[in-house]
Amino acid sequence: MERTSYSDTEAFVTLATNDQYAFGALTLGQSLRNVGTTRQLAVVVTAQVSQGMRRQLTMIYDHIQQVDPLDSHDAAHLALLARPELGITFSKIHCWTLTQYTKCVFLDADCLVLKNVDDLFDREELSAAPDVGWPDCFNSGVFVFRPSLETHRGLLQCAVTQGSFDGGDQGLLNIYFRDWATKDISRHLPFIYNMTSSVSYSYLPAYRQFGQDVRIVHFIGLAKPWLYTYNVRTGYLSAPEGKGSGHDEEFVRQWWSIFTTHIKPRIEHDQRISPPSETMPSTHSSCLNPRQEESLVEERKV
Amino acid sequence: MERTSYSDTEAFVTLATNDQYAFGALTLGQSLRNVGTTRQLAVVVTAQVSQGMRRQLTMIYDHIQQVDPLDSHDAAHLALLARPELGITFSKIHCWTLTQYTKCVFLDADCLVLKNVDDLFDREELSAAPDVGWPDCFNSGVFVFRPSLETHRGLLQCAVTQGSFDGGDQGLLNIYFRDWATKDISRHLPFIYNMTSSVSYSYLPAYRQFGQDVRIVHFIGLAKPWLYTYNVRTGYLSAPEGKGSGHDEEFVRQWWSIFTTHIKPRIEHDQRISPPSETMPSTHSSCLNPRQEESLVEERKV
Ligand SMILES: O=c1ccn([C@@H]2O[C@H](COP(=O)(O)OP(=O)(O)O)[C@@H](O)[C@H]2O)c(=O)[nH]1
Ligand SMILES: O=c1ccn([C@@H]2O[C@H](COP(=O)(O)OP(=O)(O)O)[C@@H](O)[C@H]2O)c(=O)[nH]1
Ligand SMILES: [Mn+2]
Ligand SMILES: [Mn+2]
Repeated sequence: MERTSYSDTEAFVTLATNDQYAFGALTLGQSLRNVGTTRQLAVVVTAQVSQGMRRQLTMIYDHIQQVDPLDSHDAAHLALLARPELGITFSKIHCWTLTQYTKCVFLDADCLVLKNVDDLFDREELSAAPDVGWPDCFNSGVFVFRPSLETHRGLLQCAVTQGSFDGGDQGLLNIYFRDWATKDISRHLPFIYNMTSSVSYSYLPAYRQFGQDVRIVHFIGLAKPWLYTYNVRTGYLSAPEGKGSGHDEEFVRQWWSIFTTHIKPRIEHDQRISPPSETMPSTHSSCLNPRQEESLVEERKV
Repeated sequence: MERTSYSDTEAFVTLATNDQYAFGALTLGQSLRNVGTTRQLAVVVTAQVSQGMRRQLTMIYDHIQQVDPLDSHDAAHLALLARPELGITFSKIHCWTLTQYTKCVFLDADCLVLKNVDDLFDREELSAAPDVGWPDCFNSGVFVFRPSLETHRGLLQCAVTQGSFDGGDQGLLNIYFRDWATKDISRHLPFIYNMTSSVSYSYLPAYRQFGQDVRIVHFIGLAKPWLYTYNVRTGYLSAPEGKGSGHDEEFVRQWWSIFTTHIKPRIEHDQRISPPSETMPSTHSSCLNPRQEESLVEERKV
């Protein structure tokens, strides 16, 4: 019943502004399919995402929406365009323009869904989980929102007048939805809906106690799963150099398991898709063979 | 008016099970005096706290209460005594026996109060701030509670039957008051009432945005302020070796400023007090001169 009622009007939404993050979006989307979501899947992209990657995204997502800042010419847009440091922030708030849906759950492309989370649609805007850095702020990697051009305008306005205290979307959204910490406990998503993948390092006993219920894991920071080296034959996994990491390896493995099972075969089948490395700000970007047995990153090293 | 109404029935409560943590309690108590609290100050001690230190505590605290697990002989107490790993936990829950007060605010001895926090008494049991490790747990370094022998029994019972998932009081209290994360937003103290001193490393932009309002700083972890080396002449401050740290130095300085201004002169004046090092599990414990110009830790090195 629920499936029929909401399948067109509610969506999970993610964002990819380049082919790199699109690898995240593919694996995230597949993880949502694997847990049998009844809602639509939508991905917001910008012009930089290649045609090959868009084809891949279409195989998993119901809807791809390109946002283009240059399309609008109102004052708020133009003022924002003068602030390139807010670029990605700008793209994320464009999700509020998806008014074909009445309610959405935004997920960062660096999230992985481990269990069905359709119950998130029972929540109201703006629901989100606390951020481990400053827990009176919510983490903007997972949140429930209602698309609305009015809210979109308000967010743009807020970006222009107040900017973002952290230079990203999280700082902006926490200013706009500033009563999150104090107003309504039902807007606080349980931490297991946006669990940072490093939590086993910061408070292992709590992770042992509550971690088996985790539903969404979020790979915050520079060491994104797609930047790891993974050898499918040996199972060897290593973190990208100089990017910190701190992710629990168990979760990075789960990301790679979905990627290698569902995404990689399709990419290898499509001769036209840009190989991952060509889309990366990498120094190892020459002569790749996307068909070999190794991982994304191993491929880059060939 | 408020001062008259509540000065006898409401108290800030801390805990020190040895002379080491008592240095924390002294500085904490002084920090509460400095911000002009109208409430009582109470410190719970165990037998290990020396007589000299108790005299020092009396100069700042209105009430010193010794708790002695061996005084009670009920089943819960006896079962707990068989679990020495829960020792400190055991002492903290004894704060619920302070029934001469109707409402209390517990503060860890490693907290420092920077601004008046008497408004905490407007909150109900159990109010606390989120823990940065797993933010659906509260941090048990600062919490509002109502002394009650019934709750005390319940906590003992819970300790016996369920233990503590982290081996400390925080794991136990989060099991007993398990609806904190989901039930009532007014039980969520703002993070500025229990800000971990390392937050400028974990989310600097948020700290820059909200940190000027911080009221209580909490030095979690092994590198307690009293274990730092501080040279009052040169202002040189260095973290204890092998204990991590990660505290913002600015706050450690504020701790030492209160300690050297208010506490150290009194300690030096009291020939009978045990010098700090004699109470520490330290290898440098011989021939100290508490009158010299250096810090607690420098003294240990003479
Ligand atoms: O170059 C970028 C950076 C970010 N994003 C999107 O914005 C989200 C937030 O950025 P990120 O996850 O890198 O931030 P973190 O969670 O590490 O703070 C990503 O998950 C993507 O959905 C993107 O598309 N391109
Ligand atoms: O040996 C100890 C350990 C702890 N405590 C008390 O228990 C509190 C909690 O311990 P701690 O602050 O060391 O834990 P953390 O905040 O670092 O997790 C301390 O602040 C003290 O009040 C104590 O009296 N003696
Ligand atoms: Mn992210
Ligand atoms: Mn503490």
